[in-house]
Amino acid sequence: MANITKKVSWSSRADESGAAGEGTPLLNGSEQPRPSRQLSGGGSIFQIGRLSTVDLEEEITSDEDCLRGRPKEIPHNEKLLSLKFESLDYDNIENQLFLEEERRMSHMGFRCLEISRWVVCGLIGFLTGLIACFIDIVVEQLAGIKYQVVKENIEKFTEVGGLSISLILWAVINSAFVMVGAIIVACFEPIAAGSGIPQIKCYLNGVKIPRVVRLKTLVVKVCGVICSVVGGLAVGKEGPMIHSGAVVAAGVSQGRSTSLKRDFKIFEYFRRDTEKRDFVSAGAAAGVSAAFGAPVGGVLFSLEEGASFWNQMLTWRIFFASMISTFTLNFFLSIYHKKPGELSNPGLINFGRFESDSVTYNLYEIPLFIAMGAIGGLLGALFNVLNYWLTIFRIRVGCKMGKFSDELLKQIVSITWLKCFKNNHGVRTGTFIAPVCKVMEAMLVAAVTATVSFTMIYFSNDCQPLGPDHTEEYPLQLFCADGEYNSMATAFFNTPERSVRSLFHNQPGTYNPLTLGLFTLTYFFLACWTYGLAVSAGVFIPSLLIGAAWGRLCGILLASISSNDSTWANPGKYALIGAAAQLGGIVRMTLSLTVIMVEATGNVTYGLPIMLVLMTAKIVGDYFVEGLYDIHIKLQSVPFLHWEAPATSHWLTAREVMSSPVTCLNRIEKVGTIVDILSNTSTNHNGFPVVVQVTGTDEVFVELARSRLTQRKLQLKDFRDAYPRFPPIQSIHVSQDERECMMDLTEFMNATPYTVPQETSLPRVFKLFRALGLRHLVVVDDENRVVGLVTRKDLARYHLGKHGLEELQLAQT
Amino acid sequence: MANITKKVSWSSRADESGAAGEGTPLLNGSEQPRPSRQLSGGGSIFQIGRLSTVDLEEEITSDEDCLRGRPKEIPHNEKLLSLKFESLDYDNIENQLFLEEERRMSHMGFRCLEISRWVVCGLIGFLTGLIACFIDIVVEQLAGIKYQVVKENIEKFTEVGGLSISLILWAVINSAFVMVGAIIVACFEPIAAGSGIPQIKCYLNGVKIPRVVRLKTLVVKVCGVICSVVGGLAVGKEGPMIHSGAVVAAGVSQGRSTSLKRDFKIFEYFRRDTEKRDFVSAGAAAGVSAAFGAPVGGVLFSLEEGASFWNQMLTWRIFFASMISTFTLNFFLSIYHKKPGELSNPGLINFGRFESDSVTYNLYEIPLFIAMGAIGGLLGALFNVLNYWLTIFRIRVGCKMGKFSDELLKQIVSITWLKCFKNNHGVRTGTFIAPVCKVMEAMLVAAVTATVSFTMIYFSNDCQPLGPDHTEEYPLQLFCADGEYNSMATAFFNTPERSVRSLFHNQPGTYNPLTLGLFTLTYFFLACWTYGLAVSAGVFIPSLLIGAAWGRLCGILLASISSNDSTWANPGKYALIGAAAQLGGIVRMTLSLTVIMVEATGNVTYGLPIMLVLMTAKIVGDYFVEGLYDIHIKLQSVPFLHWEAPATSHWLTAREVMSSPVTCLNRIEKVGTIVDILSNTSTNHNGFPVVVQVTGTDEVFVELARSRLTQRKLQLKDFRDAYPRFPPIQSIHVSQDERECMMDLTEFMNATPYTVPQETSLPRVFKLFRALGLRHLVVVDDENRVVGLVTRKDLARYHLGKHGLEELQLAQT
Repeated sequence: MANITKKVSWSSRADESGAAGEGTPLLNGSEQPRPSRQLSGGGSIFQIGRLSTVDLEEEITSDEDCLRGRPKEIPHNEKLLSLKFESLDYDNIENQLFLEEERRMSHMGFRCLEISRWVVCGLIGFLTGLIACFIDIVVEQLAGIKYQVVKENIEKFTEVGGLSISLILWAVINSAFVMVGAIIVACFEPIAAGSGIPQIKCYLNGVKIPRVVRLKTLVVKVCGVICSVVGGLAVGKEGPMIHSGAVVAAGVSQGRSTSLKRDFKIFEYFRRDTEKRDFVSAGAAAGVSAAFGAPVGGVLFSLEEGASFWNQMLTWRIFFASMISTFTLNFFLSIYHKKPGELSNPGLINFGRFESDSVTYNLYEIPLFIAMGAIGGLLGALFNVLNYWLTIFRIRVGCKMGKFSDELLKQIVSITWLKCFKNNHGVRTGTFIAPVCKVMEAMLVAAVTATVSFTMIYFSNDCQPLGPDHTEEYPLQLFCADGEYNSMATAFFNTPERSVRSLFHNQPGTYNPLTLGLFTLTYFFLACWTYGLAVSAGVFIPSLLIGAAWGRLCGILLASISSNDSTWANPGKYALIGAAAQLGGIVRMTLSLTVIMVEATGNVTYGLPIMLVLMTAKIVGDYFVEGLYDIHIKLQSVPFLHWEAPATSHWLTAREVMSSPVTCLNRIEKVGTIVDILSNTSTNHNGFPVVVQVTGTDEVFVELARSRLTQRKLQLKDFRDAYPRFPPIQSIHVSQDERECMMDLTEFMNATPYTVPQETSLPRVFKLFRALGLRHLVVVDDENRVVGLVTRKDLARYHLGKHGLEELQLAQT
Repeated sequence: MANITKKVSWSSRADESGAAGEGTPLLNGSEQPRPSRQLSGGGSIFQIGRLSTVDLEEEITSDEDCLRGRPKEIPHNEKLLSLKFESLDYDNIENQLFLEEERRMSHMGFRCLEISRWVVCGLIGFLTGLIACFIDIVVEQLAGIKYQVVKENIEKFTEVGGLSISLILWAVINSAFVMVGAIIVACFEPIAAGSGIPQIKCYLNGVKIPRVVRLKTLVVKVCGVICSVVGGLAVGKEGPMIHSGAVVAAGVSQGRSTSLKRDFKIFEYFRRDTEKRDFVSAGAAAGVSAAFGAPVGGVLFSLEEGASFWNQMLTWRIFFASMISTFTLNFFLSIYHKKPGELSNPGLINFGRFESDSVTYNLYEIPLFIAMGAIGGLLGALFNVLNYWLTIFRIRVGCKMGKFSDELLKQIVSITWLKCFKNNHGVRTGTFIAPVCKVMEAMLVAAVTATVSFTMIYFSNDCQPLGPDHTEEYPLQLFCADGEYNSMATAFFNTPERSVRSLFHNQPGTYNPLTLGLFTLTYFFLACWTYGLAVSAGVFIPSLLIGAAWGRLCGILLASISSNDSTWANPGKYALIGAAAQLGGIVRMTLSLTVIMVEATGNVTYGLPIMLVLMTAKIVGDYFVEGLYDIHIKLQSVPFLHWEAPATSHWLTAREVMSSPVTCLNRIEKVGTIVDILSNTSTNHNGFPVVVQVTGTDEVFVELARSRLTQRKLQLKDFRDAYPRFPPIQSIHVSQDERECMMDLTEFMNATPYTVPQETSLPRVFKLFRALGLRHLVVVDDENRVVGLVTRKDLARYHLGKHGLEELQLAQT
């Protein structure tokens, strides 16, 4: 059925241009270029798709917001695949301009380029490290002031009564910080919300997510994460570092900033998707490295999420960026902590060192660890399901509010201060209410977090003696005896990083089991509610904290069962395993996560247990629901390509999978036709095969084309200057005369695109597409005529569901 | 010029089969299968190449030996590329049989396969760990006995004089062990010589190295490495573990052993190059992991050397195998050391723990580290150049001896006990002398090593007090006062692993600078001489030892310059940096090496310095000469593919690069023709495009084909049972009647091979070939007619030399 359509359309196109006449078969090839004869389809792609995609970008932008406040009736659905997301092209467009430049370049030139790549990676690492350092210091300072003020207030009122004033003070301070964080995110750059990891995963996968690597996003992200961490939300500052690193990389590698309108005229060679992707990988790795002090983990994260084709030099550069990033962070933090040169304390988060002598494990503990992994998987799945429902709920409410506010907007014609919202949300949705609601929700969560924490601390009777070398930063005495402190407060009245460390390393007996149980319960729901708010924040640390709490609880319980064995004496070990299990259950990143955990604990001994735990958590969790990041990616209907085609898809062929009809162009084409094709947004693929048709009027066309092109020849530089924001075709005025001119596409087309026969199986197509990072793949028949085009969405829409192979629906939104 | 040949050849082939008649161009496609008409070339590859390659295997086998005793006049040359090496096919051959099986398989079936993969990887890790454990224990036991005997002898003769008897005893013991090791290697399995890392690199790269992953190789390797380490050569037992792991993987994953003639009828699905390669990657990683206690380093090693297409699940399985391997080794070693359950001491080599508190570095030390890296690069280059000359010398002498012995063999017609040599070396070279010489050389080196060591110890006056908690295993008092020991003996009278550890961790002042200087000098030349002997042995540990010695020397000198600064107090730190520099200078593996070093020292703090040092060593070393493994790979003329095409190769296109003429087959072909083509060894590519020709007698052919095929239909199982040693075509008797039968190739051909147009640039061809792990790539013209075939050697022969792009010569040997 679908095939007939294709065939007809192809022939009709051929008819139009007077093609497909009688042709003399070539008996033997000669070296002369043959006059263009019967060969009805030479599959060459002209990559001007990007020219036409930019007008789509604005659409996507407003659509992006819809994902947070969808205006239409269609319920947000993970069974849909959005057609609005463009692909990035990780295969070099080898057109004539590109090849000429490459051929002109000397051996020395390539060496210089290679050196520049190293310099750029070094810069990326350095700047990412600096940003991490900045975030860390500012958070520490502000949080210090906040906890000091609240502590003094609590101490004042503990004696005289009226602690409700302290509660209010705490809640107000938290809400104020969170309000600032939420306003900048919701109002200026909604893409900066969350950890940014799903967005970077998509980018590295090859999906163009608008505005994700802009300077403005970085600024909002950094300020936002400071506000939300200081605001006491159940969030971490580590996740956003990955996004920050990626933005730094995208900025530095391009040698200019569009936001600042500065072009340093350097690194112009890197202004294309392939090179930029490589640097963004390095940036993401540098981010991980700075956040967790895990340079190898960073490299593996980038590779796991991004680069499908492993290249030694690239990996080596990524590793370099990671190393520099950790080093920079350590160096500046060591100066800040007045111990210059002490570089052995890497990362924003420091889990503290598990000394191998004191902490080891036995073979018979491994089943216990695996059981904890299963618990982590279950709890992680529960977390994800709850968060999924919450997200759906948020979107639905957003939709209703959108409609309501649309009505409202018709009444209120123009209010000047609303423009801020208009810019980001468009008049169509008119959701000036949505950002306000988002900000209010965030403030509410902040206030609730403070209240719950306070209540827990207030009613906790868990007093612990304050040792001479106590590690507590802000010990709260509250109703405890002198020289003692409230142990619930170490968990709640603290930045989450410190709480994790306390759970890992505090002496046995520091925590009461009830305290830990209550803490796990409340923090679990708080963290679940928090993820998805319009604030920049990571989910790593809350996950670790939840896991560390119930893990330590397990450890204490085990110790109480078999009290005479020294093996169980150390609950910190179980806290570590629990943290790994919970984190694995929620995010399910496996390989890099193991390495990150191992590096962050500075101990390779726990490698195998951590790995087993993460595997178990993944298997158990996957049985119920996907990982948190994948859920959010799916909810945005992003055409995300996994590593391989579904195993049972061998019966599908390119013929069934491909899109057709394909809009083709001639090598020499009327300007009017090109403009019309580019303006027509219904051609979704945005890449047009250039085919050779039978024609006797070749010469005339070239003549005409020349007359136009001699005015000013387009060069590679023009494309680079415009990259990545090519002007929309609508912005170019083409007069009626110009429409009649001919344009020679020879220079701009990729003369040797990859093609597959139509009988190729889906896994084979998938492998080719994924391994080379393609954006378009031309499907040809036996005579090399174009019959279809495979793009990302054609491949992404098949996935393995509960009942075998399923096909996602394609949606315009 | 070359092109004309191709075109002509193509047309002549077309003429032969009466093809290329007048054809009606297809105006619009219909769904019906078209009767085979004008379409002169559908590029489908019939992968029966492997059937025909086996007869080549014997050739390769004997050729392999030539690499160690080349019989011809051609001097062994790294400017040649051997045509005798076949490629492995890491792209699935998606023929009809394969697709039918895949389509039949249920979702559950794929899940079971996935589980089997995990089980196999677990087994690989377990067995590799066991082998490592076995090697370690046996080496420790035997070396213990040896050193005890020699020590007692020395002590006996120190008093009474006549230490020359001790020297002779020592030399004889060493030579005896080495003789055994050299005989089994030279006589039974020459491929087991060396560390095996170059061979595994080639295998993972896609080059078929005969007998490299056989059980016999493993047995010889394991016994050989024990002998050479116990024999006191300047070698390590770590490198061969990588090879051992790979053999284990290749064996376990196939579910059978051809050597033992056992087929367990399991894992039959894995009997093809793609799957086997994946498991061998896991095995190599498990080997690294067991050797250095570096599971992450192992994964990175495999990825760096092998898998071009990064697949998350595969990597995860590789990591699993690595983890299991380390764990198994630790577990059994902990039992052996009577500390069961103490699992925090991973790896065969244990560098000991650098405690982060005591050892740290300052920013101003980094330039010093970089300078040490440069020294390491220089010394490494010197090592490689010397070893290169030595290897060339060995080959030349081998050639001369080969010729000489050929002459001799004509005289001595048949001597029964010579058959052992004949089997491995063929009558052609007749080098029964060569193995004997090799064994004698190895024994000589062993004796010289013992003598030099003894002399150094004898003349050393470096006495050190024997502390109460001394770590020396065999402290030699010699002429020192009571309670003191000879510090030169810690370096020489010890297994190299222990010596490295002593250099890293012994207290400042343990070594006298002169001792270290002399040791470095002698050990450098000994190690250089040793690498390339016919013994199984690694170069990692000798490199580390040389580096640690001069590194510690640097540390001592620095401390003596600025004696009042505590920073310089620890020479162990410089020993570590020196070791990294020397190892990096010799082998140049960079990314995985960093991680291996970091993991083996158990300290992430030194990550950045080690990385900088390795980078510097690589840059400096690469300026002079390639890495040691690469030199040996090049000397064997292996068509090794690097990561990318040379940067300046954009002006080359597939047309220039490809091989032509291509031997093509028809879809239905006479058996006689097929037999002739397969028997003809002058067609080098061993993969034959199946093309569709114009013919009106289609029906008859199918009829005839059926009459033959109905007798017994070939199934996928038949191919799997024969894999990887397909019977040579010569072994199949085809009668004259059978020659006239027709054979339908439809079921066996890959209907959808990857193709490229002939204008495709070399980097693009290279990328496709490398990313997908291809064996053949069909080059087609605009009308999809086959014009050429690109194979590994076509791509490998272009490389970047000192003067820009160079082309290697192709050689039959």
